[in-house]
Amino acid sequence: MRKICVVITARPSYSRVKTLLQAIDAHEELELQLVVAASALLDRYGSAIDVIVKDGFEIVAKVFNVLEGENLTAAAKSTGIGILELSSVFERLEPDIVITVADRFETMATAISACYMNIPLAHIQGGEITGNIDEKVRHSITKLADYHFVASEGAKKRVELLGEQKKYIFNTGCPSIDLAMKVNANSDFLNSIYDKYGGVGAFPDLANGYWVVMQHPVTTEIEFSRKQIEETLDALRDLNDPVLWFWPNVDAGADGTSTGIRAYREKYDLKHFHFFKNMEPEDFLRLLMKSHGLIGNSSVGIRECAFLGVPVVNIGSRQNRRERGENVIDVGYDHNHIKQAVETIKNGSRPKQSMVYGGGDAGIQIANLLSELPLIYHKTITY
Amino acid sequence: MRKICVVITARPSYSRVKTLLQAIDAHEELELQLVVAASALLDRYGSAIDVIVKDGFEIVAKVFNVLEGENLTAAAKSTGIGILELSSVFERLEPDIVITVADRFETMATAISACYMNIPLAHIQGGEITGNIDEKVRHSITKLADYHFVASEGAKKRVELLGEQKKYIFNTGCPSIDLAMKVNANSDFLNSIYDKYGGVGAFPDLANGYWVVMQHPVTTEIEFSRKQIEETLDALRDLNDPVLWFWPNVDAGADGTSTGIRAYREKYDLKHFHFFKNMEPEDFLRLLMKSHGLIGNSSVGIRECAFLGVPVVNIGSRQNRRERGENVIDVGYDHNHIKQAVETIKNGSRPKQSMVYGGGDAGIQIANLLSELPLIYHKTITY
Amino acid sequence: MRKICVVITARPSYSRVKTLLQAIDAHEELELQLVVAASALLDRYGSAIDVIVKDGFEIVAKVFNVLEGENLTAAAKSTGIGILELSSVFERLEPDIVITVADRFETMATAISACYMNIPLAHIQGGEITGNIDEKVRHSITKLADYHFVASEGAKKRVELLGEQKKYIFNTGCPSIDLAMKVNANSDFLNSIYDKYGGVGAFPDLANGYWVVMQHPVTTEIEFSRKQIEETLDALRDLNDPVLWFWPNVDAGADGTSTGIRAYREKYDLKHFHFFKNMEPEDFLRLLMKSHGLIGNSSVGIRECAFLGVPVVNIGSRQNRRERGENVIDVGYDHNHIKQAVETIKNGSRPKQSMVYGGGDAGIQIANLLSELPLIYHKTITY
Amino acid sequence: MRKICVVITARPSYSRVKTLLQAIDAHEELELQLVVAASALLDRYGSAIDVIVKDGFEIVAKVFNVLEGENLTAAAKSTGIGILELSSVFERLEPDIVITVADRFETMATAISACYMNIPLAHIQGGEITGNIDEKVRHSITKLADYHFVASEGAKKRVELLGEQKKYIFNTGCPSIDLAMKVNANSDFLNSIYDKYGGVGAFPDLANGYWVVMQHPVTTEIEFSRKQIEETLDALRDLNDPVLWFWPNVDAGADGTSTGIRAYREKYDLKHFHFFKNMEPEDFLRLLMKSHGLIGNSSVGIRECAFLGVPVVNIGSRQNRRERGENVIDVGYDHNHIKQAVETIKNGSRPKQSMVYGGGDAGIQIANLLSELPLIYHKTITY
Repeated sequence: MRKICVVITARPSYSRVKTLLQAIDAHEELELQLVVAASALLDRYGSAIDVIVKDGFEIVAKVFNVLEGENLTAAAKSTGIGILELSSVFERLEPDIVITVADRFETMATAISACYMNIPLAHIQGGEITGNIDEKVRHSITKLADYHFVASEGAKKRVELLGEQKKYIFNTGCPSIDLAMKVNANSDFLNSIYDKYGGVGAFPDLANGYWVVMQHPVTTEIEFSRKQIEETLDALRDLNDPVLWFWPNVDAGADGTSTGIRAYREKYDLKHFHFFKNMEPEDFLRLLMKSHGLIGNSSVGIRECAFLGVPVVNIGSRQNRRERGENVIDVGYDHNHIKQAVETIKNGSRPKQSMVYGGGDAGIQIANLLSELPLIYHKTITY
Repeated sequence: MRKICVVITARPSYSRVKTLLQAIDAHEELELQLVVAASALLDRYGSAIDVIVKDGFEIVAKVFNVLEGENLTAAAKSTGIGILELSSVFERLEPDIVITVADRFETMATAISACYMNIPLAHIQGGEITGNIDEKVRHSITKLADYHFVASEGAKKRVELLGEQKKYIFNTGCPSIDLAMKVNANSDFLNSIYDKYGGVGAFPDLANGYWVVMQHPVTTEIEFSRKQIEETLDALRDLNDPVLWFWPNVDAGADGTSTGIRAYREKYDLKHFHFFKNMEPEDFLRLLMKSHGLIGNSSVGIRECAFLGVPVVNIGSRQNRRERGENVIDVGYDHNHIKQAVETIKNGSRPKQSMVYGGGDAGIQIANLLSELPLIYHKTITY
Repeated sequence: MRKICVVITARPSYSRVKTLLQAIDAHEELELQLVVAASALLDRYGSAIDVIVKDGFEIVAKVFNVLEGENLTAAAKSTGIGILELSSVFERLEPDIVITVADRFETMATAISACYMNIPLAHIQGGEITGNIDEKVRHSITKLADYHFVASEGAKKRVELLGEQKKYIFNTGCPSIDLAMKVNANSDFLNSIYDKYGGVGAFPDLANGYWVVMQHPVTTEIEFSRKQIEETLDALRDLNDPVLWFWPNVDAGADGTSTGIRAYREKYDLKHFHFFKNMEPEDFLRLLMKSHGLIGNSSVGIRECAFLGVPVVNIGSRQNRRERGENVIDVGYDHNHIKQAVETIKNGSRPKQSMVYGGGDAGIQIANLLSELPLIYHKTITY
Repeated sequence: MRKICVVITARPSYSRVKTLLQAIDAHEELELQLVVAASALLDRYGSAIDVIVKDGFEIVAKVFNVLEGENLTAAAKSTGIGILELSSVFERLEPDIVITVADRFETMATAISACYMNIPLAHIQGGEITGNIDEKVRHSITKLADYHFVASEGAKKRVELLGEQKKYIFNTGCPSIDLAMKVNANSDFLNSIYDKYGGVGAFPDLANGYWVVMQHPVTTEIEFSRKQIEETLDALRDLNDPVLWFWPNVDAGADGTSTGIRAYREKYDLKHFHFFKNMEPEDFLRLLMKSHGLIGNSSVGIRECAFLGVPVVNIGSRQNRRERGENVIDVGYDHNHIKQAVETIKNGSRPKQSMVYGGGDAGIQIANLLSELPLIYHKTITY
C-alpha cells in the first residue's frame, strides 16, 4: 500500500486535481494523505478546505503558512514557513511519494521539503509556458521532481528538453479536464446559485445569459494590479449582460486587485454585478458552460474552457504562450479591446471542443502510474 | 553604483569566490554587500567567518540558520529558516543583484528569496554534473537565476540546453582557479602550519611529503557515511607518509562521518595523522601544491588540482561526471582500491596543468559583467 | 548616547507611546531605534506605519510576522516568527535598552528576544488588571522585564507584589495621557474628517454630536466574537445620532468581528453609520472630545477618556478590573443594556476629569529615566 | 480520558519527571502524549531520546528546534522555532493539559504555545530561586501557567506571592526524588559502567571511590564559561581520586565550556579522568550514591543529593538561593576553594538525608491531580 501525499495550497489547485484525489482514494494499492495548506485554509480566499471536507476527503494535516503583508517579502517568507511546517508533516506521515501541483510560489515549499528529505516527488503540470514568475517556479520544480505528469504534448517535449528522463515523463492530460467531462448543467442550477454561494453585490437575473470574470494579479506586474483590474471593470461597467465576478487568489498584488474592486464598488452603482468568493469546482464548470464566456486571466479559460468549448477573453500576460484551443481571444489591459472581444463573442458562434489538455481520464492514469512506478529520488540530467 | 549582495554559506564556497569578492570590492561601479550565513558562521565547521574578517571584508549581515539534527528534515528546515532570514536581509539591503554560489542545499534559500522578491539573481557554477542531490539543487537554481557564470564549456552548453538565454550565460571559468594562479608555496610555509592552524592528533614531519584528505558525506548515501569514511581510514592507517585530514562540511550525514573519525581515533594509534578544522584558502592550495596528492571527494580535487597539476584519488560518487583533467584517479569506497591509487600516484609522474576550469581571471570577468548587464528578473524558457 | 529600541506592533500601541517616542527623539543622550512590526504594518488593520512616517519618525526595521488564520494557533506562530525576526533586528541594532509596550500577545516576542539576548528590557503599562489572556501576557512580561514604567498607583503596587525591586518601578502615568493633554479641538476639524480619512458607509452630519465605537474581539471568548459585535450593532441600528465605527485589531477572533460587521452592513441600511479603518492619535482624541461618548471595549475609554472627561459605555470583560474614573458605565453584551447606557449618558451631565492614569508628562519622565538608569539585565525575585 | 501532553527538551528534565511520566502512563483516566524536543533529540547532548525509548515510552512527536550558534541570539531563535513547531503539534494532539518542566529557556516555547492556544498549562518546579536568567524564565512561566506543582514549601509560598490562586498550587515535592527513593546500588554496577556508557578518556579503577563532576555554563556569565570550567579542571587535575566528568547542556556558553574541556585534554594528561556524555537517570543516581561526592553546579546536587545524603561542592551562582540540605558546600569559581571543599568532604562524615524536596511520591500525587483538576485556562491575579 503506497502512501501518496498531496499538498493543496489554493482553491484552483484543488479544482485541478480533484479527480486525481478521487482516483488515488479509490485505488486499491494507494493510500491518500491529503494536506491542506496556505490560502486553501483561509476564509478571505474562499476556504477551499470547506469544499474539500464537503467532498468527503479526509485531511491529515493543515498547514498555516501565509504571512500577511501581500508584498513580495511576505511571499518569500510564506515559502520559508511552509518548508518548516511541511518537513514536520512529511516526517510524521512518511509518504512514499509527494505530489506538488503546478506552479504557485508556495508549491516550492512542498517540492523542497520532499526533495531534501529524499522522498520521491511527482509534479503535475510541469513543462508549460506562461512567461511570468510562475514559469521560474514551474521549471525549477521540474528540476527537483522525479516524476512528471504533464498536460499536453508541448509540455512533454519541454520537460524532456529540460534534461529529464523520458521514462518518467507522462502526458496524461490535465485532471481538471476529467471534471469537465462529467459535468452536466441543468437550468435549475442557475436558480439556486445565489442561495448556495452567497456573495455580495446585486442579484441579476441569469436566465438570458451572463459573463464570468476571474482575473488574478500578475506577480511580476504588481505595481499595475489596481490599474489592470480597473480596465476590466471599465469595460464591463455598462454591459447589458449580468457579470458574475470571482475574487482573486492570495498572490503578491492581490491587495491592489482587491482594493481596486472595492473602491470601484463604492464609486459606481454596479447593478448587474454579483461577486462570489468561491465555488465548488463542478458548479463553476456548470456556470461556465451556461455562460456567454469567461473574461480575465484564469488558466481555466485556457484549459477547461477548451474542452468545454466556452469562449474566453484572455487579458494580459498571465497565460502567455500556453497552448490553447480556438475558444480564446487574447487582449491587452485595455477596456476598449476587452469590450470589442466581448462583442465579437456575442456575435459569433460557439467554438468547437478541443482535446489539447487531455481526454478526461488524467486522474485514473496518474493514480495507476503512482502505484507502479519505481520509488526513486535520485537522478541526473540527461545531457 | 550597483549593490551586489553575495551570500556565503560554507567554508568551501568562500574559498571558491574569494577573488570575485575582491574584484567586486575593487570595482568602481560596484558595492559589495557580503552576507555570511549557515555553517560559515559556526565554530565546528571551521568558522569561515574568521577567515573572511581577517581577509579584510566587511560583513553586512550574519544569518544563523543551521538547525541541529544533522538529518534530512533539519536540512529542509534550515533552508526554510534561511528564507525567513534572508528575505529580511534583502529587504533591508535592497541589492541590485544577488549572487548565489554553486549547489549546497542552503543556497536554495538565497535563490528563492531573491527570485521571489524580484531581485535579479546570478548563479555561479551552474550547469555541472555530479549525479547526487546537489545536482537537483544546482539545476533547479539555474531555472530561478537570471544570469549564469559557469566554469567550463560543458557547463555552458548544459545551461543553454536547460532553456536559458545564451546572452546571459558566460563561461568565465571558476573564480577558485584565480586563487590557485596566485599561489606560491615556499617551504617555510610547511614549518609553521601546525602553529598557525592548531588542530588535533599527531604532528608528523612534512618535509618528505604528505597526503591531504578531505571527504564529505554524500547526502543521498547518508546511511553509509560512517562505513565510507572507515574505508578511507583503513586505506591510510598503515601508510608511511603523513596524512593531513580536514573535517567534513555540515551536510546531512556529517554526523556519521565525524563519529566514524572520532571512533577510529579512539581505537587506533594514528601516529602519522593530523586533523585540521579549517585553513585559509591560499594556505590550503599551498598545502596541496606541496603534497603527494589529495584523497577524498572534494571538488577541489577536480577543479583547483587540475589547474595546479596535483594528483587526486577521487572516492565514490560525489564528483561523478564532473569534467576533469588528467590528474584524477577515480575509485570506489574500498580501502584496497584507495591504497592502489595512492601507490600509482607515488610511482607515477606529476600530471600536467589543465585549463578545463578557467584561466585565472574569472573574478574580474564576473565583476565587469555585473557592472554592465541589464537588471532583469523576468524570463521565459527558450523553447 | 544610549540606543533605545522601541517595538510598535499595533495601531493603539503607537498612539499610546507617541509622546514617549518624541521625548526619546528629543533627548540629547538618547537615540531612538524605532521598529514597526505585526499589524502596525498591515493595510487591513489601518497601516499605523503610514501615520508613524507622517509624524516624522525614522523607522529602522520593519518586521512582518502576522501569520494568517486568525485562530489561536496562528497567534502562537506569529509570536514565534516575531522572535525569529526581532532577534536578528536586535543583533544588528545592538540597543542598550529595548522597550515593549503593554500586553498584546505579540509583545511577548519583543520581551523574549531582548531578555534572552541579555538586553535590558523596559516594560510600559505593567501591573494592570483585565482578567483575560492579556493579563497572563502582561504579568509574564513583568517577570522578564528589568524596568517598569507603570501608569497608576494600583499598577505600581501590583508590580511590587510580583517580586520586582522598588527601585526599578516608576509610576510615570500613561504616555497616552500626554497626548490627550495637548489636544485642542476646533469645529473645523469635524468638517474635514471624511475627506482626510476616507472609510466606507454613509456620511452623516456630525454637527449635532455623534458616537464613536471601537470594539475588539476578546481572545478568550473568540467563539462569541460575532455574536458580541451583533449585540452592539443591534443597540445602535436605530439610534438617532451618527455612529463613527472603527475596525478592530488583528486579534484571534477579529475574523468573527469583521465578518459580523460586514454581514450586518449587507443586511441593513445603516444610514447613520460611517466606518473608519484608522485615524491619527490626536485626531482620534479630538473626535472623542467632541463626541457624545465612546462605545465598545477599547482601553482608550478607560484611560484617555478619564483624563478628557468623555463618557464611555464599556462593553463586556475586556477592561475588567482596570482602574477607572467616573466617566465609565459598564454593561454586558446585551443590546438593551447598551441602549440604556447610551440613554443615561445623553440625559446626564459631562463627567469630571480624572488623573488616575497620570498628569500628561509620562513621555518626558520615562525618557529621562532611560538616560539615567543603570543598564542591567540580571535580577532575582524580592522574596 | 484526559490527554496529558508533556514536552521534554533536555536530558536533565527527563530525569526529573520520569516517575511522573510513569504515573501518568499507569493512571486509568490519563493518556500520556510525550513530545521530545530540542537538545533531548541531539547526539552531542547525550540523546536523551534513546533513554526515553529504552524506558518504554511512546513518543508522539519529535521537535527539532535547536538553532546552531551557541550564542544568545540562537537561544532566542530556538525558542521562536519551538513555538512554530509546538503549536502545530498541539493543534494535532489536542491535549487537555500541557506540562512544561522547570526553567530552561526553551520551556518558554511550550508555555507560550499552550497558553496562546487556550490549553490549560501545568508548570512543574515553579517558585524556586536561582538568581540567573533561568529565574526570569521560571517566574514568567508561572504567570502563564494555570496549575503549579512545586517542590518545596518555600516555592509554594513564592508562587502564592506571585499572585496565583492557592487552590491551584500544590507542593508535591520533586518527581526527581521519587527516582532517588527507588534506587539501590550494588557494587557490580560500577564494574560495568564503562562498557555500558562508553565515553572517552582514561578508565580509572572506581573501587576505592571517585568524584562526579557536572558543571554547566551560566547563561548570564557566558563570556567567563571557559575560564570557569578551567578553574574546576585546575582544582581536580592533581587529585588522587578518579574523576567522572559529564558533558554540559546545550546552553548559551556551552561552546566555551566544551572548548575549555577539549583544550585542557589536549594539554594535560588526565590519567584519572573519564568523560561521559550521558547516563540513564537511575544509573546516575547509583553512581552518585557510591561516590565521594558531586562537584559542579547541577541542580541534582541540591535536590536528589539532599535526599540521598551525597556531599556536594556547589560552584558559582547557578544554584544561588535554592533551598538546600546540609549536604552542600558552596564555593566560588576558584580552584583553591574547590580543592579545599573536596578535602573537607573527604575528611568529614556523610551528611544526613533531607526531605526538603519531597518524600518520593511526587509523580503519583501530580498524576492524581491532573485527573481531577478542573480544566481552566483563564485566570486573574489575586491582588
